[in-house]
Amino acid sequence: MFLKNCWYVAAWDYELIDGKMLARTLLNENVLLYRGDSGEVIALNNRCPHRGALLSDGRREGDDVRCMYHGIKYNKDGRCLQIPGQDMIPPKLRVRKYPIVESARLIWIWMGDPARADRTLIPEYAPLHDPKWRGLPAYLHYDANYLLIVDNLSDFSHLAFVHTNTLGGSEEYAYVTKPVVVEKQERGFRVDRWHMNSEAPPFHKKVIRDKDARVDRRNHVTMLIPGIFYMETTFTPAGQGAEKGNLENAREYRNCQYMTPETDRTTHFFWVYLNNFEGTDTTISASLLDSLIEGFLEDKAIIERQQKTLEEDPNFQMLGILADAPLAHFRRVLDKLIQAEQEPPAGTVPAAAGAAKQTSLA
Amino acid sequence: MFLKNCWYVAAWDYELIDGKMLARTLLNENVLLYRGDSGEVIALNNRCPHRGALLSDGRREGDDVRCMYHGIKYNKDGRCLQIPGQDMIPPKLRVRKYPIVESARLIWIWMGDPARADRTLIPEYAPLHDPKWRGLPAYLHYDANYLLIVDNLSDFSHLAFVHTNTLGGSEEYAYVTKPVVVEKQERGFRVDRWHMNSEAPPFHKKVIRDKDARVDRRNHVTMLIPGIFYMETTFTPAGQGAEKGNLENAREYRNCQYMTPETDRTTHFFWVYLNNFEGTDTTISASLLDSLIEGFLEDKAIIERQQKTLEEDPNFQMLGILADAPLAHFRRVLDKLIQAEQEPPAGTVPAAAGAAKQTSLA
Amino acid sequence: MFLKNCWYVAAWDYELIDGKMLARTLLNENVLLYRGDSGEVIALNNRCPHRGALLSDGRREGDDVRCMYHGIKYNKDGRCLQIPGQDMIPPKLRVRKYPIVESARLIWIWMGDPARADRTLIPEYAPLHDPKWRGLPAYLHYDANYLLIVDNLSDFSHLAFVHTNTLGGSEEYAYVTKPVVVEKQERGFRVDRWHMNSEAPPFHKKVIRDKDARVDRRNHVTMLIPGIFYMETTFTPAGQGAEKGNLENAREYRNCQYMTPETDRTTHFFWVYLNNFEGTDTTISASLLDSLIEGFLEDKAIIERQQKTLEEDPNFQMLGILADAPLAHFRRVLDKLIQAEQEPPAGTVPAAAGAAKQTSLA
Repeated sequence: MFLKNCWYVAAWDYELIDGKMLARTLLNENVLLYRGDSGEVIALNNRCPHRGALLSDGRREGDDVRCMYHGIKYNKDGRCLQIPGQDMIPPKLRVRKYPIVESARLIWIWMGDPARADRTLIPEYAPLHDPKWRGLPAYLHYDANYLLIVDNLSDFSHLAFVHTNTLGGSEEYAYVTKPVVVEKQERGFRVDRWHMNSEAPPFHKKVIRDKDARVDRRNHVTMLIPGIFYMETTFTPAGQGAEKGNLENAREYRNCQYMTPETDRTTHFFWVYLNNFEGTDTTISASLLDSLIEGFLEDKAIIERQQKTLEEDPNFQMLGILADAPLAHFRRVLDKLIQAEQEPPAGTVPAAAGAAKQTSLA
Repeated sequence: MFLKNCWYVAAWDYELIDGKMLARTLLNENVLLYRGDSGEVIALNNRCPHRGALLSDGRREGDDVRCMYHGIKYNKDGRCLQIPGQDMIPPKLRVRKYPIVESARLIWIWMGDPARADRTLIPEYAPLHDPKWRGLPAYLHYDANYLLIVDNLSDFSHLAFVHTNTLGGSEEYAYVTKPVVVEKQERGFRVDRWHMNSEAPPFHKKVIRDKDARVDRRNHVTMLIPGIFYMETTFTPAGQGAEKGNLENAREYRNCQYMTPETDRTTHFFWVYLNNFEGTDTTISASLLDSLIEGFLEDKAIIERQQKTLEEDPNFQMLGILADAPLAHFRRVLDKLIQAEQEPPAGTVPAAAGAAKQTSLA
Repeated sequence: MFLKNCWYVAAWDYELIDGKMLARTLLNENVLLYRGDSGEVIALNNRCPHRGALLSDGRREGDDVRCMYHGIKYNKDGRCLQIPGQDMIPPKLRVRKYPIVESARLIWIWMGDPARADRTLIPEYAPLHDPKWRGLPAYLHYDANYLLIVDNLSDFSHLAFVHTNTLGGSEEYAYVTKPVVVEKQERGFRVDRWHMNSEAPPFHKKVIRDKDARVDRRNHVTMLIPGIFYMETTFTPAGQGAEKGNLENAREYRNCQYMTPETDRTTHFFWVYLNNFEGTDTTISASLLDSLIEGFLEDKAIIERQQKTLEEDPNFQMLGILADAPLAHFRRVLDKLIQAEQEPPAGTVPAAAGAAKQTSLA
């Protein structure tokens, strides 16, 4: 059960170059994504309603698409334009269209009721729109439910054990630091965590000169519904008072991660790790990309094994520790939103039912 | 749910050479096929009733077969002949035998009530028995329900889009031609479709001299229960009056295809494409075999993806267009026959129940 | 449904060298096995109760183990010793521990109620403790329920057909020999079978000088709950009166096999084939190991196909012959024990329920 009425990242813009017809399963639905000749990004249900052939195996014609089984053609709104050998077009023969917004190289999709697709609901992030922040966008596929990745990002003590030699730096991170602020929000949470007078972690050492200098490290996390993670990381010379606002000679990063359910047990993971100090080439970004992939693969091994464990024994109940407060809050908030979506207030037209109707039609 | 009381193609005769013990699943049942020393083709349930070992892993002894787990031996009727170390043979220890008819290199099997296995019910096709028609028999395996292949063959507008560069020739086929006759029959349908003054399609061009000559093309299709397809194809010089019966200098083909369910989601596909103009060598047949395989693989990609789509969303309802009238008729006829088989008229001994009893015994 | 309150072989001791953290599924439960610095073999449920990460991916610290996701540490009894960043340890955060006994290089595990784990219930076998009996321990994995292997070992007529050219020697074994004693026991059965004046089977010929000498062959089988097989095999010069106790110049073997369910459809198969005549090198044992593997792979092919056949048609009922009396008895005894375990006498605390409670906690 997924939250439908919200924006998810469906793709990076670079996945739609050269007329590519991208077939991508999102929230268990098979979606066709392509950029029409007009430049608009179009998302349609990927199934021809006639015999179920994939439209992504079809032919793009301008902004339209033609199924290449029996030649039936649909426009960018999913309306049928042509049935070869038949003049009358039945109105039921149409494909579901999904609202799309393109912003800062991200293709956002709305899988719920189209009438509620308000683009101001996109959780925009300023650094993505600011040219001084630079990074290389990337994608990973997880064989795990997206919430297990959200969980992972909600407790940074795992940096100490999973990422000792990559993103973390030492087990000390778990023993001597704690979140100083855990703020529960209406659609997510915020966590602030400092590691004073510490050694720089490996990924950071790779892109700085003075690798031995002690640093005050700050990770400032924001997690938002449905699975959007922003983190500001700052390394400041140790002891100069970063915690009081002195950011002289700081090195800063901005981490953006988007978890979009593919199916109940798999996830699309979009991310970009930004820095503001590399200048005009991409040397720093390339190093950070490699480091982050190295770290994410460490997470991925654990998280995918967790998924298997949960599937092997559906009765297994995870036991919370204090550090799980943020993730527990996030799951509670999400459950409430999903429940509200499934059971709309009496007297209203149920949005979810309307969406479901469209699905079965498409 | 399959129609049981009818003939299906189980194999080509060439699959049973050199004493081969062929294990083949048909209508979800594991069947052993072999040619005994007497020359008779024998079909038995492939499971030893003792511990379930495969008889196809056993040893053929004349017309008999011995399970090579504990050495139990059965004759061609499935009767137990020997239990090593035991004198008394319990009558329940027997293997189900299936009626077989060999005709025109095809091995036909009857999976229903043996008492109703009447060989005159085999939908024979004269060209298969006429030495002037020549072709190379072949087999393909589909990861798709057999009815999706029947559907495919029921609407020839797909030639235009799926087979443009192989069997079809151009998209024009879908835009300018329509079936001229659609005849619904008690156990299938017949469709007649002409494409006047057209370019010859690629597969035909490969085996004729004057590749540029315009032709009047006729495809005359017959589809029969449970999934048997015969098609007469004629290419006549354009404009000479083929539609009025003038077949001078015509090139003719006879297409025979047999779809036999392996399981609910897989199919055995037997076929041979006949011509009457190659003389004594097999050059023409070999070219046509290659062309047809090329074309069938185009279908197979689409049909197997359809199967996946239907499995991914069992609620998906396909929406018919006018061209689907023949396939809709076929499915209605088949459904009625299956239903009649499941619910026999009151007062009679149910045939299906009798068959089921035999199955559980075997 | 497995019998829980009994000892199963979990591993050979050589599988736990060099601090190896062995993850092994036993009776559908994922178990971590390791030898602590103290020398004790420890078995814990392999799932960290916090987020379900595998403890086998963790780090052994002396006799303790630390989960390397968030660093939580457990002792050899499954008690939590440390949660990094948290002082209070909730008592519910503990891992299930399984009783272990190490004996004659075998690691025995008790998967049921720990309070009932009595080490005198282990079905010990004297030759394993006697240095004059020598052999090379080995392991095979079966894609089949363990009872199908028990079945296989319960009727030796299969030697004639499955192992004609390896362990059996000829089909004669099935035709001319029968069990002389079949003794049903409270927790298993015993079978005695002689093959007088016979050719030596291939595996035995490989390790003796006079390969043409006729022998009187005796196989004396004991099968015990839950799936433990011991067999004494004797080859005596033909006609000298072995059946009356004259074992002069006999060659003897002792066969030990342990079938432990991994899942409902897979099995761990531990075995060692002992001889008492090789002296100080392992030449004979190495030859016997190869021969036995060769023979077991013949069984494995049949047994794994049986498993598939049973899964393909859950309604298939196997039909017994006279030789199935021992295996039928074994299954009856086992079923009764399992039933008794599931439905304890009124007025007592149900052991199985207690075990289940512990499982869900772990």
